[in-house]
Formats: sequence, C-alpha cells, structure tokens
Amino acid sequence: MSKALGIPKGMRDFSPQVMQKRNYIFETIRSVFQLYGFEQIETPAMENRETLTGKYGEEGDRLIFNVLNSGEFLSKTTENELNPSKSISLLPKIADKALRYDLTVPFARYVVQHQNEISRPFKRFQIQSVWRADRPQKGRYREFFQCDADIIGSNSLLNELELIQIFDEVLSNLGLSDFSIKINNRKILSGIAEVIGRPDQIVDLTIAIDKLDKIGKENVLKELQSKGFKDADITQIEPLFALDGTNAEILQMLEDYLKDSDIGLKGIEELKEVLSYFNQIRLKRAKIEVDVTLARGLDYYTGAIFEVISNEVKMGSICGGGRYDDLTGIFGLKDMSGVGISFGADRIYDVMEELKLFPEKLISSSQVLFVNFGKKEELYILPILKQFRENSINAELFPEAAKLAKQMKYADKKQIPYVILIGEEEMNNETLTVKEMNSGHQDKMQIEDALKRIANG
Amino acid sequence: MSKALGIPKGMRDFSPQVMQKRNYIFETIRSVFQLYGFEQIETPAMENRETLTGKYGEEGDRLIFNVLNSGEFLSKTTENELNPSKSISLLPKIADKALRYDLTVPFARYVVQHQNEISRPFKRFQIQSVWRADRPQKGRYREFFQCDADIIGSNSLLNELELIQIFDEVLSNLGLSDFSIKINNRKILSGIAEVIGRPDQIVDLTIAIDKLDKIGKENVLKELQSKGFKDADITQIEPLFALDGTNAEILQMLEDYLKDSDIGLKGIEELKEVLSYFNQIRLKRAKIEVDVTLARGLDYYTGAIFEVISNEVKMGSICGGGRYDDLTGIFGLKDMSGVGISFGADRIYDVMEELKLFPEKLISSSQVLFVNFGKKEELYILPILKQFRENSINAELFPEAAKLAKQMKYADKKQIPYVILIGEEEMNNETLTVKEMNSGHQDKMQIEDALKRIANG
Repeated sequence: MSKALGIPKGMRDFSPQVMQKRNYIFETIRSVFQLYGFEQIETPAMENRETLTGKYGEEGDRLIFNVLNSGEFLSKTTENELNPSKSISLLPKIADKALRYDLTVPFARYVVQHQNEISRPFKRFQIQSVWRADRPQKGRYREFFQCDADIIGSNSLLNELELIQIFDEVLSNLGLSDFSIKINNRKILSGIAEVIGRPDQIVDLTIAIDKLDKIGKENVLKELQSKGFKDADITQIEPLFALDGTNAEILQMLEDYLKDSDIGLKGIEELKEVLSYFNQIRLKRAKIEVDVTLARGLDYYTGAIFEVISNEVKMGSICGGGRYDDLTGIFGLKDMSGVGISFGADRIYDVMEELKLFPEKLISSSQVLFVNFGKKEELYILPILKQFRENSINAELFPEAAKLAKQMKYADKKQIPYVILIGEEEMNNETLTVKEMNSGHQDKMQIEDALKRIANG
Repeated sequence: MSKALGIPKGMRDFSPQVMQKRNYIFETIRSVFQLYGFEQIETPAMENRETLTGKYGEEGDRLIFNVLNSGEFLSKTTENELNPSKSISLLPKIADKALRYDLTVPFARYVVQHQNEISRPFKRFQIQSVWRADRPQKGRYREFFQCDADIIGSNSLLNELELIQIFDEVLSNLGLSDFSIKINNRKILSGIAEVIGRPDQIVDLTIAIDKLDKIGKENVLKELQSKGFKDADITQIEPLFALDGTNAEILQMLEDYLKDSDIGLKGIEELKEVLSYFNQIRLKRAKIEVDVTLARGLDYYTGAIFEVISNEVKMGSICGGGRYDDLTGIFGLKDMSGVGISFGADRIYDVMEELKLFPEKLISSSQVLFVNFGKKEELYILPILKQFRENSINAELFPEAAKLAKQMKYADKKQIPYVILIGEEEMNNETLTVKEMNSGHQDKMQIEDALKRIANG
C-alpha cells in the first residue's frame, strides 16, 4: 500500500461499531448538560493563530498545529527570513491560522466577542474535537473530542454544586458504579504556600504536589528541595500529605493548619459551603473526596478544583475542572468569574469497554434485513419495507439477488438482529418468515405481527 | 478590539439558537440515514496531504488547507529551496498533512484501507465538517458540514431508488413541501457526445450544458463554439435544450435521438428502471424530473446524476449526488461501483429560515427557571429542582439572589417558557407559583401538578 493509504499518526478512523459507542457517550453527556440548562455552541476548527499562542505556556505553543496560508504563502517573506534554522520566527509570516488546541480559549474568545448577545450567567457546553501535536502513545491522540460545560459570569458556589451533580449524573447514567469526585480549592493551596512563607512559589509547590500519585512522596520532596524549599519549609508541608479521615475531619485539620492565612481559610469556607449542599440532596453514585494534593497543573484555576477517577479501572482522571476568576481577561474583558468541567471521552470509553458497560443493544443501523430472492420478490417487498420504516424500524433490502449465504453473512457481520425472507410461498399467503439471528429460530407470520415483534424486540 | 478577537474569514461561531436549528437538521438527516440501514463512520480532520492532492483538479488542489509540520518545520529544507517565489514546490517538505476537503475522498481511502473489515455492500453515512480556502461570499464558507450517504460495492439500481427516497423523506420531514429531485444519467450525456460525433469532448459538453440555468442558452452555445464545436454539431445538440413534457415523453424523445448509441440507450434503460420503481411505491412530497441538462461538473460520475432544488426558494441545488464506477481505483482497489448523495446543510438551513419551517419549540436548554430569592429558598428548592430533572424536564435555578427583574430578563433572553417562584408563602404551603412567560399568566399549584403541566407544555 502506498503511504497515501494510511492516516497521519495519532489520528483515527472510527468504524460504525465504535461510532455507536462514542455517540452513546456523547449523547449521554449532551442530554445531561441540557437537563441542567446548558446551551450548546460551536466555534470554528481554526482560530487566528495569535488567539491561541501564549495561552498554553511554551510547551503548549509548540504543540499547536498551524495552518499554512493558502496560495503563495511565501509571498510576504524575504529571502533573508527564509532560513532552514528559523522555522519559528517565520510562522507569523506564513501561517495566520491555527487549529483549536482546547475548547476553553475559543470559549473565552467567544464570550468576549459576543458579550452583548449572550445572557449572563452564560451556561454553555461544547463538544468538539481539538488537535495537539503531542507525541502519540497509548490513549493519547493528536485529534480527540473534548466535552466541556462552563458557567461564566457568576460567583455563586451553587455552580460548583451543579457541576458536581453533572459529573455524578453522566457517569451514573453511563453505568459506572464506583467513582470518586475529588475536590480541592486553589485558595487552600495558596494558604499553604503562605503558611510556609513562600507565597511566590505557589506554582512550584502545586506542580510538585500534583505529582504525588505518580512519583511518590520521596520524589515530591526531592523536587521541592530542588526548587529551593528548605528543610524547615518541607517539615511544615509534609504533614499535609498524610491528611486522612472523613471530609469533615480533613477540613478540620486544615482549618487548624491554615488558621493564620486569610486566603487559606477562605478556601476552606468555600469548600465547606459546596459540601454543605449535600445535606440537602444526595449524589447518585459518586463518592466525593476532599483531596488537598489535587492541583491539576493548570495555572488559571483560582477556586474549586475537580478531578474524577474510576475506582475500578486504573486510568488517571476521566474528568476534570475548576473555577477561574479571569479567563476572559486575556481578551480584555475583566471580572468574569467562571467555573467549568471537561469529560475525557476517550478515557471514559476505555473504562466502559474494560467494565463492559456498553449496552448490548445499541441501535445498530438496521433492525431488519429483507432477503432479496429476485426482481419479482424485490418489487413485492418494496411497499412492505416502506411500512417497516414508517413504523420507525431501521430496515433494508439486500440490493441484489445474491446467494442466500452471502446475504445471511452480511446480516451477521452487520449485527442485524432479524432477517425476513419472502419467497413464492410467502407472497402467495401474504406472510413473511422472520428469522431471529441470535437464536436461529424462525417463524412464519403476518406483517402486522412481525412489526409488533420487531418493534418490541 | 485586537485582531485576535475575531475569527478567520469564512469561518463561523454558532450561537445556541443557531445550534438548535442546525442540530435539528443533522438529527433529521441522521435518523433517516439510519432508517435506511446506513452506518456512521468518522475520519480524521487531517489526511496525509498526498491522499488529497490530485483528486479535485488543479483548482481544488489550490483550495486545500495545508497543515504545517510541527516543530522545526524547515529542518528538511535547504537554503536553495527556500525562495519567496517557490511556495508550492516547498509544500511537500514542510506540510505532510492537509485538512479534509470533502467526505468522498477520505471515504474512498477508508474503504480501501479497511476493505477486510467492512461488509459489502457498505452503506455508510458521514456528517463532518470540511475546509476549503475558497473566496468567502454569501452562503459560501471556508468551514462547512457535509452530510453524505454512499453505498459502495453494489451495481443494483435499487440503491438509486433508496437514495431518492432518502432525499424525499429527509426534506419532507424537515417540512419542505415543494421540491424537485432532478435525475439524469451520465451515459445519456456520453450517448449525446457520441451521436454528435465528439465522444472525446464529453467533458467540455457537460460542463457547458451544466451552465444552462446560470448563463442561458445563447452563452452555452457560445461556449460550445469556443471549445471547437461546429455549427453542424450545435444544430444537433440544440433540440436537447428544448426537451419538454412528462418524464415518459422526454425519455421517449431521447430514445429516438440516441437510437444509434449503445451507451446512450443503456443510460435510458437505467433511468427507466429507476423510475419504474415508483409504480410500486410513492414518494412523500418530492417531484421527480428527468433533466438531461443536469451534469454537475464532477468528472467521476458514470451513471445516475441527482440534484435537488427547492421550488419555493431560489437557491441553487440543496442536495446532489450520483453513481461512480471507480472511486476507490485511485487508491488501488478496482471495480467498486458506488452511488452516493450529499445534503447541503447550510442551504437547507437558509431555505428553512426563509420558509419559516423550523418548529416553534425546538427544545431549548431549559424548560424551567427557578427564581432564586435567597439562601433559604435556594436550599429549599434544590430537591424540587432535582425532581424536575428526574422527570426529564430541563431545568435550572438562577445561581444568585439577583433582583427579580434581572432573573426574569435572563429567562426571557434564554427563551425559557416557564418561571417558577418559590418564596416564603409557597414554602409554608408547599406549593409553587408557575409563570408562563408567553402569556404572562401565573398560577399557584402543587409540585405534582406543575410537573404534569410542564411535561405536557
């Protein structure tokens, strides 16, 4: 096969069977988002390159896919600028556009650009693909879907509650039974940095703490030392790693620890308020766990931080999110506090596959295949086929009078549950023979009865 | 506003209101595709550049968006190759990937690459966006969705019938009442070229005939002259432009005209066979019209050619399609005949807007807004809100105790049909006040009654 036959690395074709499962996940997420009053938007695959650059850190900028200007893209360049070693500085001259790297920055751009049209608070969701020139590896792709819901323009902690409920409802509806929503608050992390006298090093501290699960306590401590944290600082941090007990107990210990930090106490107060809602209503299946080691690397969170993990499948986080006070500030609109979450569809898919959570009967394209025995039967079947479709039964007629074995094999491969045979005898009696593919069992019956059987089947 | 705040020209943001309407169109198309036994696939936004180049003609190649290799994209180039006037020859060195230009070529690539997995005939549909660096103008965008259904691996004309039924069913379901499915056959066009003794100039002939509607007969004749058609040829072609009458009459005249062309007669025979199916079943609302001037510029059609137009809104074609005998040949898989159709979602959207065909009540995100009067009411409402959602009613609670006028304005702007007020009195009586936003009418009632009213409303 020529190279042209493949697809670029890190990208995927989705077969009908996989599409059915993916759509099942997306539809479940979408319907819950709507149940909670979120509205869908879409933004273009391409943004102006300068909309995206500088928003994801240096590493992020490198992973953005840039789109070449069309036509004579070198026409704005000079010979001088064209130098094999000067790729990056050439970018602004030859690539005005870049592909969406996440849904958050385009959303911020959308909010600022359309600020006079949208109602605030603005509850939007967005389910679209994003592209990253990351090194592909198991479970990491260069094109993947994000499913985001955000509320912007409201400080109320009721929003945090609703997003937690959405995590719970989506994953419960998808059939997950044992999963934890971890929650932290960035202000608590700030408080800790303050208590140990290093408010300027909060980023180093959170990045290191965030790695606790992956690299273990010893290595986190080493990393902190390498960042200039002294032994005295570390002695003060260390007990935090051992926080244990119920959420209430953990919060009590933290409250003591942070008693001299206003911002730290504010974080605890917010966390407590969110948790207090659960005196009023219960979650379906999620456990909620206060986790002070949760930091999620992202610089822009300012309040709540969320992460969801499956307790049955080791997989890393399957959802995440948090509150950011100034997302739209980068585009000139200040004081728009927001809070949002994101579902990792690919990881959820993998968890569901491993736990066999996909329903046996996702609606396949066809419920019924009519066998084609020849022109006469074909013409006879057409109005019957129409009747099936009018009854909302996905149905098809094999387009040629191929050998019966071939037609049966087709039904089998396509996982069509019922095959209907209409030959000379059936035409004479105005009946049809329904074969159930799973059991192999077959019955002669009236059209009306077949319609009922298959609609209920 | 800084330039970064806009989006690239020819691209669009879709607001919640527009998304609802677009989703309504896509869902209608998708459900009909599935009703007819088509299965969904998706392919990546990016293909290897060489998969796409050379497939759409010279003009098409220029309109493909190329994606820069990531990282030091100039590293494979030499100083010599870097010349401001040599953009195009540099492409293979710096851009391995390009964005999908249509869904047909990626589908052909998919069929060849996955030939051992798919069941044949393979009935697939695909609803994804494509990108073209076309000059943007009213109704023409650089990013737009295509909605394609194709059957590959079957010569049966039953497939043509099914695709015509799908046109009819989708557009009828969307509420269009007066539209025509035009049908022609490429073999008839070949027959005509043969009859006038110019089989080598079939492309010139069809391209010119295709313009009849746009530029008028005189200009078509001029174009044919400029392509070297002689007066004698043109005298022979001209009567074809005047073909008129019922489909049967037109076919009769054509049969006489093409009596010496085997391929022409074969085209008529195919067309007749497709039309004969309509003795067996009726279309819902579509008129079907044989139109020998229909050519659709596309080089690869070999049999049936379709085009659908609205008779109520001047808009050009809203759908198209046809049969191609050798689509996968370009990727090395011979003899896979296919036939496919494509819905132009943007044009259908415009037709529906103009005819006011979108249902008044597309499910907006929220059916109900609960007004927030303060913390006490908020906590009281949470379990009631949950009950509404458990009854599949999209509902939300305003996240802050803002002024009532602000909350009402929010409901109004978001087109939420019901607002529920629960204050001191309602809490004491365990009732709620339901305000119907359209009429302004409001009623006090029990929760159960409100659930019933809104579920049915």
